[in-house]
Amino acid sequence: MYAVGIDIGGTNTKYGIADKEGHIHFQSRVKTRKYTDYMDLIRAIFDDLLERYSIDDILGVGVGAPNGNFYNGSIEFPPNLPWPELTRFAEGVEQVIGHNKKCTLTNDANAAALGEMYYGNAKGMDAFVVITLGTGLGAGVVTHGDLIYGKHGLAGELGHTLVSIHGRDCACGKVGCLETYVSATGIRRTIYKLLADHLEPSLLRGVSFDDLSTRFITEAAEKGDFIALEAFRYTGNILGMKLSDFIIHTNPEKIFMMGGLARAGEFLFKPARESMEKHLMPLFKNRGIELLPSGLKDDDAPILGASSLVWKYLV
Amino acid sequence: MYAVGIDIGGTNTKYGIADKEGHIHFQSRVKTRKYTDYMDLIRAIFDDLLERYSIDDILGVGVGAPNGNFYNGSIEFPPNLPWPELTRFAEGVEQVIGHNKKCTLTNDANAAALGEMYYGNAKGMDAFVVITLGTGLGAGVVTHGDLIYGKHGLAGELGHTLVSIHGRDCACGKVGCLETYVSATGIRRTIYKLLADHLEPSLLRGVSFDDLSTRFITEAAEKGDFIALEAFRYTGNILGMKLSDFIIHTNPEKIFMMGGLARAGEFLFKPARESMEKHLMPLFKNRGIELLPSGLKDDDAPILGASSLVWKYLV
Repeated sequence: MYAVGIDIGGTNTKYGIADKEGHIHFQSRVKTRKYTDYMDLIRAIFDDLLERYSIDDILGVGVGAPNGNFYNGSIEFPPNLPWPELTRFAEGVEQVIGHNKKCTLTNDANAAALGEMYYGNAKGMDAFVVITLGTGLGAGVVTHGDLIYGKHGLAGELGHTLVSIHGRDCACGKVGCLETYVSATGIRRTIYKLLADHLEPSLLRGVSFDDLSTRFITEAAEKGDFIALEAFRYTGNILGMKLSDFIIHTNPEKIFMMGGLARAGEFLFKPARESMEKHLMPLFKNRGIELLPSGLKDDDAPILGASSLVWKYLV
Repeated sequence: MYAVGIDIGGTNTKYGIADKEGHIHFQSRVKTRKYTDYMDLIRAIFDDLLERYSIDDILGVGVGAPNGNFYNGSIEFPPNLPWPELTRFAEGVEQVIGHNKKCTLTNDANAAALGEMYYGNAKGMDAFVVITLGTGLGAGVVTHGDLIYGKHGLAGELGHTLVSIHGRDCACGKVGCLETYVSATGIRRTIYKLLADHLEPSLLRGVSFDDLSTRFITEAAEKGDFIALEAFRYTGNILGMKLSDFIIHTNPEKIFMMGGLARAGEFLFKPARESMEKHLMPLFKNRGIELLPSGLKDDDAPILGASSLVWKYLV
């Protein structure tokens, strides 16, 4: 028996078929914005899947989506999606697939955390945090071996915890949120702040804000570019400071980091670890609480995160 | 059948006998520092209790203590207690009482949160936070109807989350911790900062740092004292800002506040609520997440918190 995993993103929607051991037997993607009605997106996915797999082989469907709400299967106030608020996505999936198959949905970072627990570096852990660094900063927080959802299913939006009340404008409506510093967009903003503050020559002076990618920043850092290196230090320093607070909240065994900006590796991990250690409450020191890379391959993580929802909640 | 509740404090150790409905049938206290060996303290408590109640009526013993660790029954690095580190308190209790009676121990703020869930305003809630304002700021965080302990039993030390890296020295070894601002000690420090910054006449100019009590500050505020009122605004503002972060972490249904400084009532609650609302991520607004007073009487809370551990974990 297989689980279907669907990861809804602002640009691409990835979907695939995985077994309980975390082997992905098939995966594909469609452009999310191609569909003005999300039911059409779901139909396109299952038209493709049910040509390849029998309905009898499918145990259930797991969906990870930005602002996905586990409690009601809706995608609430979807920040980058073309559909209106409070879309009852999980119900739509159940309608399309029929045969009494169930669908469970949660936010993409929560799904990533479950994937890490089932197939990655968090195997066997009861308490850990997964940070996903994409356009924003998402987080899935596990305690007692289960995700923290809270009263309204909104727990763990750690990208919107406060760095500074005098900080940067955030798309959420607040000011100074963590993700305005620590995310693919955040480090871009930092680059331009640093270009404004400093006189050093930099490869980054030749790239527009819109064209600047994390990969380009990382490549510049590899070449010793002052601005790029300083941007990683600045970003890591803020991240580590907030991680020291996250640790106090739920006392995780480990913190895992994945996503585009995490691919910068030690450029980001090293200053983040140093800052985390520096700001950590002494009571938590020397207990092995560490910041580590995810154990999932970037290509597999979205499908495995979403499909793990099936094994967790639908079996 | 009854539960014994013991609350270990730096000054007094309170103990009592309560039933499952939260009626306290007997309570008393001893001076904690009278005992250089904590086993003597335990013996004194049970000498008293077992003169009044039969061992057969006692179901078990719950203990709340600063830095109490649920996992191993120890009091780790006790900040204000006369005994050495890592005291195996719960085992000591079991030895003294004998008859195979069990003892379970946790930190005092966690016990307070359980008490609030069993007998206070958090009845029936799966996700909430209890803040205790005494010498420091403690917190008990409940999700899925259970306390968050984390990997090492240290979760929820929210008094040591960061307000400012340029902030006040904290007894924990860090700088800028929340409890250096929001606690009985914190508001005292704020009073003296304000006396330094401002010229207004104030009743507080006549009191030494050592002699200043929360009650005196509250009475000054009732008389319209500028410095006292400003201190509550300053304290509430910082508290509300951090509460907005706490809400993001675990999405509680409500936040309850108890302890000496909470007795100042609206002087503290009003600016804290305003600041919390101001800093709250929009996604969490209009969902009824509120800061409320505890539903337990101050005198009863320590015994009921500790005794609720018995009904939660030993039945």
